[in-house]
Amino acid sequence: MRNTCILPDFLEEISEEINTEIENLGPCRIENPLRLPEVCFITDDMRVSLRVSEGSLREAFKKEGRIPSAELAGPRPYIYFDPAKTRAAIVTCGGLCPGINDVIRSIVLTLYHSYGVRHIYGIKYGLQGFIPSYGHDVVELTPEVVAQIHELGGTFLGTSRGHQPIDQIVDALERMNVNILFMIGGDGTFRAATKIKEEIAHRGLKIAVVGIPKTIDNDIWLVSRTFGFVTAVEEACKAIRCAHTEAIGAPNGIGLVKVMGRYSGFIAAAATLATKEVNFCLIPEEDFDLEGPGGLLAALERRLAERKHAVIVVAEGAGQKYVQGEKPEYDASGNLKLGDIGIFLRDRIKEYFSQKGIEVYVRYIDPSYIIRSVPAVVDDRIYCGFLGQYAVHAAMAGKTGLMISYLNHHYVHIPLSEAVKKRKQVNVHSRFWLSVLESTGQRRLKNEA
Amino acid sequence: MRNTCILPDFLEEISEEINTEIENLGPCRIENPLRLPEVCFITDDMRVSLRVSEGSLREAFKKEGRIPSAELAGPRPYIYFDPAKTRAAIVTCGGLCPGINDVIRSIVLTLYHSYGVRHIYGIKYGLQGFIPSYGHDVVELTPEVVAQIHELGGTFLGTSRGHQPIDQIVDALERMNVNILFMIGGDGTFRAATKIKEEIAHRGLKIAVVGIPKTIDNDIWLVSRTFGFVTAVEEACKAIRCAHTEAIGAPNGIGLVKVMGRYSGFIAAAATLATKEVNFCLIPEEDFDLEGPGGLLAALERRLAERKHAVIVVAEGAGQKYVQGEKPEYDASGNLKLGDIGIFLRDRIKEYFSQKGIEVYVRYIDPSYIIRSVPAVVDDRIYCGFLGQYAVHAAMAGKTGLMISYLNHHYVHIPLSEAVKKRKQVNVHSRFWLSVLESTGQRRLKNEA
Amino acid sequence: MRNTCILPDFLEEISEEINTEIENLGPCRIENPLRLPEVCFITDDMRVSLRVSEGSLREAFKKEGRIPSAELAGPRPYIYFDPAKTRAAIVTCGGLCPGINDVIRSIVLTLYHSYGVRHIYGIKYGLQGFIPSYGHDVVELTPEVVAQIHELGGTFLGTSRGHQPIDQIVDALERMNVNILFMIGGDGTFRAATKIKEEIAHRGLKIAVVGIPKTIDNDIWLVSRTFGFVTAVEEACKAIRCAHTEAIGAPNGIGLVKVMGRYSGFIAAAATLATKEVNFCLIPEEDFDLEGPGGLLAALERRLAERKHAVIVVAEGAGQKYVQGEKPEYDASGNLKLGDIGIFLRDRIKEYFSQKGIEVYVRYIDPSYIIRSVPAVVDDRIYCGFLGQYAVHAAMAGKTGLMISYLNHHYVHIPLSEAVKKRKQVNVHSRFWLSVLESTGQRRLKNEA
Amino acid sequence: MRNTCILPDFLEEISEEINTEIENLGPCRIENPLRLPEVCFITDDMRVSLRVSEGSLREAFKKEGRIPSAELAGPRPYIYFDPAKTRAAIVTCGGLCPGINDVIRSIVLTLYHSYGVRHIYGIKYGLQGFIPSYGHDVVELTPEVVAQIHELGGTFLGTSRGHQPIDQIVDALERMNVNILFMIGGDGTFRAATKIKEEIAHRGLKIAVVGIPKTIDNDIWLVSRTFGFVTAVEEACKAIRCAHTEAIGAPNGIGLVKVMGRYSGFIAAAATLATKEVNFCLIPEEDFDLEGPGGLLAALERRLAERKHAVIVVAEGAGQKYVQGEKPEYDASGNLKLGDIGIFLRDRIKEYFSQKGIEVYVRYIDPSYIIRSVPAVVDDRIYCGFLGQYAVHAAMAGKTGLMISYLNHHYVHIPLSEAVKKRKQVNVHSRFWLSVLESTGQRRLKNEA
Repeated sequence: MRNTCILPDFLEEISEEINTEIENLGPCRIENPLRLPEVCFITDDMRVSLRVSEGSLREAFKKEGRIPSAELAGPRPYIYFDPAKTRAAIVTCGGLCPGINDVIRSIVLTLYHSYGVRHIYGIKYGLQGFIPSYGHDVVELTPEVVAQIHELGGTFLGTSRGHQPIDQIVDALERMNVNILFMIGGDGTFRAATKIKEEIAHRGLKIAVVGIPKTIDNDIWLVSRTFGFVTAVEEACKAIRCAHTEAIGAPNGIGLVKVMGRYSGFIAAAATLATKEVNFCLIPEEDFDLEGPGGLLAALERRLAERKHAVIVVAEGAGQKYVQGEKPEYDASGNLKLGDIGIFLRDRIKEYFSQKGIEVYVRYIDPSYIIRSVPAVVDDRIYCGFLGQYAVHAAMAGKTGLMISYLNHHYVHIPLSEAVKKRKQVNVHSRFWLSVLESTGQRRLKNEA
Repeated sequence: MRNTCILPDFLEEISEEINTEIENLGPCRIENPLRLPEVCFITDDMRVSLRVSEGSLREAFKKEGRIPSAELAGPRPYIYFDPAKTRAAIVTCGGLCPGINDVIRSIVLTLYHSYGVRHIYGIKYGLQGFIPSYGHDVVELTPEVVAQIHELGGTFLGTSRGHQPIDQIVDALERMNVNILFMIGGDGTFRAATKIKEEIAHRGLKIAVVGIPKTIDNDIWLVSRTFGFVTAVEEACKAIRCAHTEAIGAPNGIGLVKVMGRYSGFIAAAATLATKEVNFCLIPEEDFDLEGPGGLLAALERRLAERKHAVIVVAEGAGQKYVQGEKPEYDASGNLKLGDIGIFLRDRIKEYFSQKGIEVYVRYIDPSYIIRSVPAVVDDRIYCGFLGQYAVHAAMAGKTGLMISYLNHHYVHIPLSEAVKKRKQVNVHSRFWLSVLESTGQRRLKNEA
Repeated sequence: MRNTCILPDFLEEISEEINTEIENLGPCRIENPLRLPEVCFITDDMRVSLRVSEGSLREAFKKEGRIPSAELAGPRPYIYFDPAKTRAAIVTCGGLCPGINDVIRSIVLTLYHSYGVRHIYGIKYGLQGFIPSYGHDVVELTPEVVAQIHELGGTFLGTSRGHQPIDQIVDALERMNVNILFMIGGDGTFRAATKIKEEIAHRGLKIAVVGIPKTIDNDIWLVSRTFGFVTAVEEACKAIRCAHTEAIGAPNGIGLVKVMGRYSGFIAAAATLATKEVNFCLIPEEDFDLEGPGGLLAALERRLAERKHAVIVVAEGAGQKYVQGEKPEYDASGNLKLGDIGIFLRDRIKEYFSQKGIEVYVRYIDPSYIIRSVPAVVDDRIYCGFLGQYAVHAAMAGKTGLMISYLNHHYVHIPLSEAVKKRKQVNVHSRFWLSVLESTGQRRLKNEA
Repeated sequence: MRNTCILPDFLEEISEEINTEIENLGPCRIENPLRLPEVCFITDDMRVSLRVSEGSLREAFKKEGRIPSAELAGPRPYIYFDPAKTRAAIVTCGGLCPGINDVIRSIVLTLYHSYGVRHIYGIKYGLQGFIPSYGHDVVELTPEVVAQIHELGGTFLGTSRGHQPIDQIVDALERMNVNILFMIGGDGTFRAATKIKEEIAHRGLKIAVVGIPKTIDNDIWLVSRTFGFVTAVEEACKAIRCAHTEAIGAPNGIGLVKVMGRYSGFIAAAATLATKEVNFCLIPEEDFDLEGPGGLLAALERRLAERKHAVIVVAEGAGQKYVQGEKPEYDASGNLKLGDIGIFLRDRIKEYFSQKGIEVYVRYIDPSYIIRSVPAVVDDRIYCGFLGQYAVHAAMAGKTGLMISYLNHHYVHIPLSEAVKKRKQVNVHSRFWLSVLESTGQRRLKNEA
């Protein structure tokens, strides 16, 4: 059943076995202060299947007697930390994403109102905030302080890129007597989180490290959809509509839009499906030729001859073979510096048609940071609210080294070590991608071998 | 695992056995014209589990050797209808909902471009459009005609409420030589669809009837989330933000918002979770007292004393015991005419505080049709696109008497007869509803027995 | 030239002579601390013509040797108050309006950064905030406190309706050593402001009272357009678009929208011009009949017969003759309590067509507070920024008993005593209103005498 | 009074004498079919003063016995063209601008419904549409065709850049028997319009040429504000808010936004006033140094040291001295090809701080075509509606060689020959620009001579 369309949650059927045992700091002996009916508490043996294909489930049961599954998230009947003495810290790392403030707010409100935790620290500017030499202050977080932050985009705490020394981070946690560290970030952050967790264990400390997956590209493995993604697609669609308006507004008008997506083209693909105005959707997962009869330029020329206008959406990570220099460069976080495929395509398309003597109007739009800096849409807001709540429930129960994920309509715990093993990408053989191709009408943009 | 939060897809774990055998008009012998890799076609034995709890799956396999599941939707390798000779009709029934035009457009584009069907009729004003005495024209639907309709809210075809004679509807289908009827509507429509399907069978005709579930209230059984719902919540949240602004803008300000939700309070509940500004959320599924120490008015008075403002969201179907007359009245479609709980609450709250000599500012907002008449947000647009595609795939394969549903991240076929058996409602014992209560801080609004 | 269209600034040509002498608390002897080129300061002899018709100007010069004009607003070369010792207070009165927070923020930033004033008090909940018995706190206003308030609708300070004892208000000003009082409000507020100014003079105090005109209805005399009005029309248009979508979505669909406008129909009229979808626009300034061959109902019936749908926009103050009881009632501020013309029309229209046996679908939308509680659009934001700045310039120069107005593209000073003499209304003989009638195609809805 | 702030209508006080005599094709002998009260018709002797300063008016009357004024627009009692026989054409030239479709729609509806003209042609793709060799079709325009076009951005008719032979254009008008040509465009278009008018006169034809001023930059002389400008600023502000969010989200975050504005910085300036978050606003009208103690880079460094973040808005035409090559290049319409000041600043800022060893996060946003391709906001919609109406009134009265302008709250006729004499620019000595500087806190970015 691997070809099924699985939008708006793009996760492929998970075929390998996953170790989803979650680490605990110790036994939970404190009664959960949440005033809930008993039946509402979750126990660790409640698990969610990672598959839903009847055939695949049947086979797994037959063969192994069990199915790949993940621990269900939610409030435990007993907790590990004593709320009155608990100190929590929140840090946001990496690039912006719509909804970060909603997650911060949800963590603070749940800690404060549901559990009665009174010491919550906001770490400024990502991991830098732990390092004394940067001199960033710590922010005391209360319900009053976070009351309105969800109305604004970005992160109220600030963020930064780049590695910081793990021991200094744990030093800071010790100095501040922090018991729980919430890390909102992507795979780089989760790698750091894993090392922090190990250093904590090495020092014999009792500090829970809980991750909330954040990536504008929706490319974290074992998360069906990351928060902010729907908002980003909403914004990307606005830019595409403008590109379409420009394209039909001129003879041989070509609207070209670059959107985020370093390794995974989910934003480009979803925006293509949503607008239905895109004629070529280029993503990192699918190689394409530019020149030759099977390439993009010839296809574009045919499209213009037929319809007099065209819209192209390109993910920033697509076609890197055309724009990477000899030596790849990396940024502070160790991410490859991408070449600018948008500018490259704009110029090459102009040149191509100019050489052919065909007058075209190329309108290039790069919404860039706009799609990640806006406040979250309602769907993401609700999602962020739950992510924050479940992160608190996990942390108070002394669970560590995990992230909160959303899979098969349930919130679950996934070990950070599993989450960073792979990157989630568009399966170019799935119904989802085939629907994109159906929508654009584009063929495979490759010359015959 | 029934207490798990299952937002944004609200379906409860399905516990009973479901007959999901889908009827076929006959064997499929025509090769599917879609140029897809073989592996992309779906066969009828591919099924999706309706449960994802590991324990419940294990038990089902143990006890019965099988699990509740539904037929996977998608293009079949062979189809029943010859595209060149196929005539399809689309009808939209009941109230408006964001995304109807997206569904219509998707059906037309898939029929036309993917299958090559050239005769597609739009039936005007719902079931009235079949009845000659109304004199409504039929609209010829082509890609050009539907090119821009998704930019606008509402339904391009018009709709109406009320029953129409089944035999006259089938007469019309016969007269027009229609082979496929797409019905976009809710449970009332699906009841009519079932009768139409039976009359078709009775007459020995070969007409497929395929439903696309539409309800602004998100209350159709066996559909995790109906299209347009996210858009409706987005709009409802705007009204609630205004109510909150009004409430904090005056001493003892009370913002009262009525939202749609006749029997199911999903819009009220989701909007409460999204805005985090609501102090009382009243839905049809949970009875509440107005008077007495445990009732709403006393709770509201306490809230004002503490915080000087309050926001109340009430679903239109909540508290009907206060506003129903002696004899219930019904509209043309047989729906109960609800009493106006919004106006009632507004007036009773004013009166209550006036009698107590407490000056309050009550600001009542009823966004009413605004939340269902706007164009769809991007998430709903993508969803509608898929619903239309899958409806066409099912119909071309000669399947009938079914609706397209979205369950556990997959599109599936559900017999209409199953879909109308129940209404989906908020489970007031679920994590979802408990999260709403946590967000509002409201207690059970009932006096002790 | 009185028939000229004067949108988006609706002021009629001012024909009578206006006394626009502005009162001063005393001579200005302190050099203005603004670091501006000399040429940028404004002197009191700079005046703006209130007329722009060449003929009317010529005549005025000929007859009287001068023209009706107003004192130009702006920074004076010398100021009255010593910034280091100045204490200013801001109060917001009456109903909400988009942009109030922008005005507050602009006043605070200009006082603080341009003039160096360090003591700025925010009075809570309107005039109540002056009265000790209410127990409302005063808010210390600084650039930090107001940094983000413009992102939210409403008033950060809160507001209230109703009269308060003038002497207690001035007592409070004395107790707080306030030198400048900024009053953001409408004609009721300006009447109170005038009395406060008189009491101040009576006590021999040196306190400047400066008004910033605020009314969602755009009905303040001698102001071409009030802030927030454009935002309100933008929101009203959204409701009308939904009503139109509903109307065309059903056979004989009637979309009915009630918008704000107690005595002046500017919102209804402007929204009609903007959407171009309205067929009947009813405003307080033009009487209409409901029954009879010339009345609304007959006209509506004709419209439905021709086009099968209709959209009606009604200002809340229109047709009051149908909904006023025997004895008019008044609210705390002395405003007439209006009858609900929207509900009345909805019910009467349903009844009319029901009696005629014509099936119609009436969709009634009352956006009510939504149109006044949203954050301001950009145009209003810029406007609010200037109003705040000019109010500060006037106050620092010791001017009192005036409001800041915008006339003929210039900001001017208008004595409060002039502003409250009349109410601005739609001139039903102007090109503006004729354009509305042209847009709707409606005739005069009156039966022949 | 030249320092007065004159926002949102930016026109400087007109000091020179202007010839505003409007050409007529001949005497008007046909009664105007508009059913208006007599008093609503406008006669040619009604004129609007171009000044409003009392002093300047007084002086003009004294010295010359008259004041600079313009002919009032509006329906004339008698018209030149017989509606039954009139053929009108509409062409849209140059870049896109929000509201073009609103103007087209208004022209068509007014011609059709108010005057009864039945032959209205839409010329495709700007002036190209007149030239047979391009092979573009002509579109028949009716109320049905234009019913929904205002819901979409761009131009329904398409546009193009570049000159076309005047004689071939007039040939086309002759072939089509066109009597009225409406040209929606900027100064380039108006230069072509003037030549077309002359060629028409030379051939002894009776064809009226009426211009509607369109420029996203708001830079047309003698128009206080061009349509679409408010919408463009609204969109620009969204990008600036995102830049601000990015800037405060990182240590030493720098948000850099490039907006449209080739020669006139109105968008940059107005967006700066509206958002209040901008620290440096760079426009073509004011030269700035980059290097040196008085330059931008040093000022930026000081700002970061103080506040840790900064937002820069740069109009595309600013700082061209840094990015122009040796030989200026021109596009098809003869416009100078601008160097990319945005990319240049981004790179130079990065380099500067890198050399200084200061870590900064530069976020560059270029919303480019987004701000001109969106549908118009309500304020622009109303404005466009009036522009279309007044253009039709002028044309039907046989007036030619003019544009419709909005000055001092009135719609007036301005000869095209006057409109192209100058370009409207930001007066850097005006209160308007000083307010921008006050808002940013920026000083003059120049090193001492």
